[in-house]
Amino acid sequence: MAVDAQAAIDLLKELRALTADENGAQRLAWSPVWLKARQWFQSKLRELPVEHHLDAAGNSWTTLAGASEKTLILGSHLDSVPNGGWLDGCLGVMAAFAVLRRIVEEHNGRPPVTIRLVDWADEEGARFGRSLFGSSAFAGTHSIVQDRGRTDAGGMRLEDAQAACGVNIDAIGDAGLERKNAAAYIELHIEQGPVLESMGIPLAAVLGTKGVERHAIAFHGQEAHSGSTPMTARCDALASAAKLALEIRTIAKRHADAVCTMGSVKTFPGIVTAVVGRCEATLDQRDLDADVLATMFREAQEKSLQFAREEGCTVEWSRIWNIEPVPFHPQLIELCEEAIRETAGQSHRMPSGPLHDAAEVSRAGIPTVMLFVQSLKGISHNKIEDTREDHLQLAITAFDKLATKTMDWICAQ
Amino acid sequence: MAVDAQAAIDLLKELRALTADENGAQRLAWSPVWLKARQWFQSKLRELPVEHHLDAAGNSWTTLAGASEKTLILGSHLDSVPNGGWLDGCLGVMAAFAVLRRIVEEHNGRPPVTIRLVDWADEEGARFGRSLFGSSAFAGTHSIVQDRGRTDAGGMRLEDAQAACGVNIDAIGDAGLERKNAAAYIELHIEQGPVLESMGIPLAAVLGTKGVERHAIAFHGQEAHSGSTPMTARCDALASAAKLALEIRTIAKRHADAVCTMGSVKTFPGIVTAVVGRCEATLDQRDLDADVLATMFREAQEKSLQFAREEGCTVEWSRIWNIEPVPFHPQLIELCEEAIRETAGQSHRMPSGPLHDAAEVSRAGIPTVMLFVQSLKGISHNKIEDTREDHLQLAITAFDKLATKTMDWICAQ
Repeated sequence: MAVDAQAAIDLLKELRALTADENGAQRLAWSPVWLKARQWFQSKLRELPVEHHLDAAGNSWTTLAGASEKTLILGSHLDSVPNGGWLDGCLGVMAAFAVLRRIVEEHNGRPPVTIRLVDWADEEGARFGRSLFGSSAFAGTHSIVQDRGRTDAGGMRLEDAQAACGVNIDAIGDAGLERKNAAAYIELHIEQGPVLESMGIPLAAVLGTKGVERHAIAFHGQEAHSGSTPMTARCDALASAAKLALEIRTIAKRHADAVCTMGSVKTFPGIVTAVVGRCEATLDQRDLDADVLATMFREAQEKSLQFAREEGCTVEWSRIWNIEPVPFHPQLIELCEEAIRETAGQSHRMPSGPLHDAAEVSRAGIPTVMLFVQSLKGISHNKIEDTREDHLQLAITAFDKLATKTMDWICAQ
Repeated sequence: MAVDAQAAIDLLKELRALTADENGAQRLAWSPVWLKARQWFQSKLRELPVEHHLDAAGNSWTTLAGASEKTLILGSHLDSVPNGGWLDGCLGVMAAFAVLRRIVEEHNGRPPVTIRLVDWADEEGARFGRSLFGSSAFAGTHSIVQDRGRTDAGGMRLEDAQAACGVNIDAIGDAGLERKNAAAYIELHIEQGPVLESMGIPLAAVLGTKGVERHAIAFHGQEAHSGSTPMTARCDALASAAKLALEIRTIAKRHADAVCTMGSVKTFPGIVTAVVGRCEATLDQRDLDADVLATMFREAQEKSLQFAREEGCTVEWSRIWNIEPVPFHPQLIELCEEAIRETAGQSHRMPSGPLHDAAEVSRAGIPTVMLFVQSLKGISHNKIEDTREDHLQLAITAFDKLATKTMDWICAQ
């Protein structure tokens, strides 16, 4: 029995009409538009023989009981960034819905393993600066101390916005109860990058999410008059930072999928007539291999010290944030590649630069894999985010095959 | 007869006590403290057989009539930046006063040529953003259209601040009348840079003021996600700017005294998780040789295009400001070096990176030279601006000798 991929695409368009304006999707977590999206989705689930409830962190769970309590979880998120796209998160939820419906029909409402569909709460963190909120509560990697007290641009507190949606921040750890019997988690998502388009390949099995080292770097030199200070008498903080901005590219290119980005540079005093006395920069480094990530971090630090010395400056580093790489499950990656090859002929394996709820699920010890579909121009978090409709068809079909293979794999454990 | 250098230094200290607070000198042009400084200076001039008046631009002229109408002008400025030093400008005025007094005494009030002391109005331009105001009106290089309508941080208009000091902006061109009979202009100033201190030399003859090319440069690349965009798929505007920030040093170092400075870099969107899509930088290039300056400007433009191409970016230049180099008078430079050698044993020749009133005087076709004295740590426009007192003694003495030599040179014309 075939999954109805077109039905999933039609639902995506229906959801877009319901929750986007001329600037794009507006399903910001804990907002009325987000609640409307979830209510709409519930209305679609009513046709199926399923149980539904929200967990303590606001994740939305839909359960189709199977012959075994062992559970395959399919999921993604309905929330979006402000002015977001029509596919980020929603594609995974609608695909999961289509697969769930196919399983209900094929197994007369009683599949061999239990199937659950999850819509994670606040994946984006766009409003309160806390991404993967619901999935980290599920995984038990959350910190109530760090989550509490966050405010949005209007001064509203995270816990108050959540309370209005029925979530008590002190109880979110109870979302961990949902891990019971979880045997595998699979998620379909758009790539949000340009790799597959550049290779001319529609689908890829995701190897895991890259670890991230994110630092603030300050070079201290000597502010000086641009007219009266000879080139040889300068301690130019910008020159140190410029050398590092170029060197991080060399550091990254030594490793296949690694990336290093200097996204922000600020100069002080920052006026046309003064040599830069202080230069503040940010560095974001990512790789799927923890050793590669550690090496890149160490190399960037060493080079920054060398460049500071060469320019008569000093340098200070402070960590903004970091997360370890999360490799997905090797056997599920194999199954994912099989499903892709059977559907699209050719497959590809790649790490994910962006983080996903799947990383939190995997950190909780649940075998996990993701399936990526090509993004046009690599653009996401924008109203022009898009994917060719024939690629969406392939993606939903391959994801359905992956679900069947994963159910079989769970049964064989 | 020897100039009384110590008396000039004592006056500088008296002026500091009168017009500085705990943050430094506060003789901002067109302010009550500046008027108080000028009034104080007038009281010192009363002992001499001189005529005094303000010209149409607020420049303060003190004239000692000589046997010839041919005139030697000695000058500098009493105004300071906010939180300024005790020597910038004032040193030249107090030295000129000491020299004038020595000439009065030596020639019984009737020297062979006419001697004038000028205190230029608003050299710094610190309040209204218009430096060299009085000297450019004197030289006829001013633009009333561009000067009118400037406002200070408090919203006060330049012309209103000037009117309160008796200056009518529509009449400032009449200051050009003061050029009559001018045969030479000499000015003593602190170096405001680190060159002489690093060489262990107290005094230098100044070759002229460097020309300046000042530009805003914008590199346009492609904003992209730092996690999902491979290194090879990026159009990184910061990388283009970083290459240029380093290249301008190579460009400058090909020429002895040239300087190139990138003083400001701004990144957009300027966040840790995005490849820089747009990078705005400033470039300030200076040299005494117009050909060198033009070459450096052309090289920086060519390199910026090359770097933009290499990084898949485009680049735009827009001129902020420029001024041609102003070389001083070759024979007066010779006389200045003689005076320095006779006083301090060793001399040096150097261009001035900062601009000075002397540049405007020279542009008016009046033979001009400046004498620099070493600045400690190269620091100026700051309350810690300082010069060793024995170096101040040498400077005032050498400036006095330069005045005598220049009077002789005028007589010999």
